[in-house]
Amino acid sequence: MSEFISKVDKEARQRAAEILKTKFLTLLDQINKGEPLVLEIPKRTLTNTVYDEKRKLLLLGENKIKRHFLDLNEAKRFMQTTLMGSIIYDALVNNEYPTIRDLYYRGKHSIVLKAPNGKAYEENTWDEQKESDSVIVDIEVLTSLLREDMLILSKEKGKVVGDMRLRSGNDVIDLSKMGHGAYSIEPTPDLIDIVDVKADFVLVVEKDAVFQQLHREGYWRKYNAILITSAGQPDRATRRFVRRLNEELKLPVYILTDADPYGWYIYSVFRIGSINLSYESERLATPNARFLGVSMGDIFGTNKKKPYLNDIERRNFIIKAKDTDVKRALEIKNYEWFKTKAWQEEISTFLQKKAKLEIEAMASKGLKFLAFQYLPEKISTSDFLS
Amino acid sequence: MSEFISKVDKEARQRAAEILKTKFLTLLDQINKGEPLVLEIPKRTLTNTVYDEKRKLLLLGENKIKRHFLDLNEAKRFMQTTLMGSIIYDALVNNEYPTIRDLYYRGKHSIVLKAPNGKAYEENTWDEQKESDSVIVDIEVLTSLLREDMLILSKEKGKVVGDMRLRSGNDVIDLSKMGHGAYSIEPTPDLIDIVDVKADFVLVVEKDAVFQQLHREGYWRKYNAILITSAGQPDRATRRFVRRLNEELKLPVYILTDADPYGWYIYSVFRIGSINLSYESERLATPNARFLGVSMGDIFGTNKKKPYLNDIERRNFIIKAKDTDVKRALEIKNYEWFKTKAWQEEISTFLQKKAKLEIEAMASKGLKFLAFQYLPEKISTSDFLS
Repeated sequence: MSEFISKVDKEARQRAAEILKTKFLTLLDQINKGEPLVLEIPKRTLTNTVYDEKRKLLLLGENKIKRHFLDLNEAKRFMQTTLMGSIIYDALVNNEYPTIRDLYYRGKHSIVLKAPNGKAYEENTWDEQKESDSVIVDIEVLTSLLREDMLILSKEKGKVVGDMRLRSGNDVIDLSKMGHGAYSIEPTPDLIDIVDVKADFVLVVEKDAVFQQLHREGYWRKYNAILITSAGQPDRATRRFVRRLNEELKLPVYILTDADPYGWYIYSVFRIGSINLSYESERLATPNARFLGVSMGDIFGTNKKKPYLNDIERRNFIIKAKDTDVKRALEIKNYEWFKTKAWQEEISTFLQKKAKLEIEAMASKGLKFLAFQYLPEKISTSDFLS
Repeated sequence: MSEFISKVDKEARQRAAEILKTKFLTLLDQINKGEPLVLEIPKRTLTNTVYDEKRKLLLLGENKIKRHFLDLNEAKRFMQTTLMGSIIYDALVNNEYPTIRDLYYRGKHSIVLKAPNGKAYEENTWDEQKESDSVIVDIEVLTSLLREDMLILSKEKGKVVGDMRLRSGNDVIDLSKMGHGAYSIEPTPDLIDIVDVKADFVLVVEKDAVFQQLHREGYWRKYNAILITSAGQPDRATRRFVRRLNEELKLPVYILTDADPYGWYIYSVFRIGSINLSYESERLATPNARFLGVSMGDIFGTNKKKPYLNDIERRNFIIKAKDTDVKRALEIKNYEWFKTKAWQEEISTFLQKKAKLEIEAMASKGLKFLAFQYLPEKISTSDFLS
């Protein structure tokens, strides 16, 4: 059926299969040399996660763990790793596009073992998807291949419009000609070829509905923007796509979320990534991303600027923060990358006022206010947090 | 800023504004005639919801309620309705694209009232979005305009690829040239102009990740399908888009979900709609939609066909149903549109076996199995439930 599969996919498969094969062939070497079997995998614990001040990225440190086949405590995980390696390799050479859920099912079976007393018993390769997912991450850090490099697909929420042409698969797509709809980003954004872009910056909107509004109102045409929505918490492909626009095209990236700790967290995921998955951040994070708003200063004003809301609007629009918001704010306050003066003030104001605001409250002042006053003013006066 | 707004949007606005104006002008008539103010709105309760056997649709009955301004119990709702009507009208004539969240904020304010004893007190127009949402539905049934007809936008999850050209806004989009990505359906699918289609049927996949897999594997090219994902529970635009493909192009619609009551419910929403929102179903439902699978027969076989899974696969893949699944199955069993022989057998088998299966389990047998054997075989042998 390969007549329908694109050339970039075929090449990506060959690259990944080759690397995977080479890594696991070291085991064959060990067997040939009569050595005990051992896999050396970068350690991905918090103690081996470092925040690189200069690159502004969370990175895995130098520590590695050795996983021994002949150690009873490690044998199962060792076998899970080789099992998953072989399943992914098979998928690569057979032109399959598995998901992580597939991979869980593909590997899930029972092995009959004999105990020292001669009794047979059964052991499952894995019971829960979190086990197989964790093994996939092991293989990612072992091979330095992201799952997307191994043609493992996933659901994908990110959308984009703007004056930009992409080559994806066998097609060139003009993102300025999507009508009222949008282009839904592919799950393997590294296989996208950016053909040409006429834009001054990237605006990433947390909320899909706000994206629809700005798109429909012609915001991106008027201000030469690439308009993106992550539709909530960003997925990997959206993060990687945004990073590429920033890194390769040098486009400034502005993030627009609700004014609350959840919005800050979305910004944080774009900018740095998840603490527990620092191995991804080297390729998925956009350390230069800027938090455009909505900020506490937009709501309450600062000693440098007037607020965008008046007393009555504040009264009608502000949502009282819950305990969980306060808890999350206190956590975020301690993240290394939030320890700038601007962010510490922002979080302090929130903790003092206990006030949240949705972007939709701003939009309710008139979409034209949001699209043609608030956003352009914030961008032109560099009124963002970073 | 209207230079960026499409002609179809402008025309749609004019149509909706005219209808809205006419409806609310009856109030002015009443005032001029010195009559008491009253709005007559179709009753949207379960008792006024009927299942039309012939059209296979849930429809609102003939009953109407009268909402009197001068009745203390109805005055607030009366005023909420006129408030919302005027906000939507303003948005229409001012080229705004509100969301229902916006509309909540736009109308939210406090009114100072005087009690009979002369004391002033405050009353909010509404406190929760569910109040303003309910008023929007009142306006929809009052005017027979769906919110989309009034250019009220929303987030949108549905995606489509296939050999098909659409005109949306000022662009013609070729859905066969989306590369590895997809076309994200606009929130106002009635404004789409279907230019041409070369396809034999529509396959709607519940899961976005499975959509990605089938797309990437070339499924829709090989089998002349329009491939759609609802990414879970379908939203209004995806439902309306699917209905249009079925109704206007006479394309058969097949729904592919997990084999569980939640999957059946997704099928049910496409086919009939929600019982509580029957006023929508006249335009959003696709009464001819067919449930392609995964069915209990696919898992266990029937007296007419062999199962697609063997014993070992059943053992590894089947998920045990929970109490909530059983509860939902018992509810669905009583829906009028599930009272066919085939569906009653399907649900009985589920209740007897207490077994669920994910599409991903089928995909794990090889994506080629799913794309090039299971799906084509099911479709060519009419092995679906309806």
